[in-house]
Amino acid sequence: MKLADALSLIRDIPDYPKPGILFKDITPLLADPTAYSTVIKAFASQIDDVDVIAGIEARGFIFAAAIALEKSAGFVPFRKSGKLPFETIGAKYGLEYGEDEIEVHIDAFANGKTVVIIDDVLATGGTIAAALELAERTGAVVKSVQVLFEISGLGGRELIAKRFPKIEIKSLVTS
Amino acid sequence: MKLADALSLIRDIPDYPKPGILFKDITPLLADPTAYSTVIKAFASQIDDVDVIAGIEARGFIFAAAIALEKSAGFVPFRKSGKLPFETIGAKYGLEYGEDEIEVHIDAFANGKTVVIIDDVLATGGTIAAALELAERTGAVVKSVQVLFEISGLGGRELIAKRFPKIEIKSLVTS
Repeated sequence: MKLADALSLIRDIPDYPKPGILFKDITPLLADPTAYSTVIKAFASQIDDVDVIAGIEARGFIFAAAIALEKSAGFVPFRKSGKLPFETIGAKYGLEYGEDEIEVHIDAFANGKTVVIIDDVLATGGTIAAALELAERTGAVVKSVQVLFEISGLGGRELIAKRFPKIEIKSLVTS
Repeated sequence: MKLADALSLIRDIPDYPKPGILFKDITPLLADPTAYSTVIKAFASQIDDVDVIAGIEARGFIFAAAIALEKSAGFVPFRKSGKLPFETIGAKYGLEYGEDEIEVHIDAFANGKTVVIIDDVLATGGTIAAALELAERTGAVVKSVQVLFEISGLGGRELIAKRFPKIEIKSLVTS
């Protein structure tokens, strides 16, 4: 299956999570074995040898876990605040209203592990910038950031490029 | 690597999430490429051909997504209430205090898909029973439930056996 055919299974949901937003529903793609495998292999083909693949909770876990298996790498979770049991550090990021926080274990990237950070969507870039900040503070060597879907025009790529100018950002599809 | 060696990387965290609880921290296992791959292949070896592997948010996603890739199956998420964009049905389950709810898309198992349901831990069984109820209501053909870690003595296996007597439950390790 071609990547474009796999991506064509993404379903538009109007007015979710609120009026005026056109939400990209990836569940039909995930549920299709061939499309799912095609997308995971497309991610993997862009990644050189790396120690761990890190996923951002929760949809990022889905892609990152499978890519980790495909690349014979380990998996590291970036989780919402309060969900990781060991010692953590956290980074806050702005939402449209208020802010949220993600955390990572302080030993997640011990001894300078190389990592590729995965999420499903790059929009405003707040969550991914927070993950990059945490990776940097815990001694990780970030090889790249990869997302399934990049929504341009919301400043996410620009935000990350400004704060982390050496980090390469790849997306499988851009709208 | 032997499965027992992979599982030995699970880290005990005393008094998390509250005093008296000994939490099983799977992140050191996930971060180790060989251990992670060993566990995924152990799950996969217990699964015959199946249409989709379903994971329960959030840690269940990690295992289910990789197992889906390994088995050339699709992936279906059971999510916390309010997180799925398309039409959903939900099932509540009891917690120590109050209750919680998980949801699945109504078309997740369209046309009687076969499914194996994956989670990290089987404890009281409430979440997994809710997932089984939703699978049944949406027309899925459940082949089995598989967990990494079963905590016996909390009644989870018994609860599921009572409500869903035909469902096989497998765990990689039991304490």
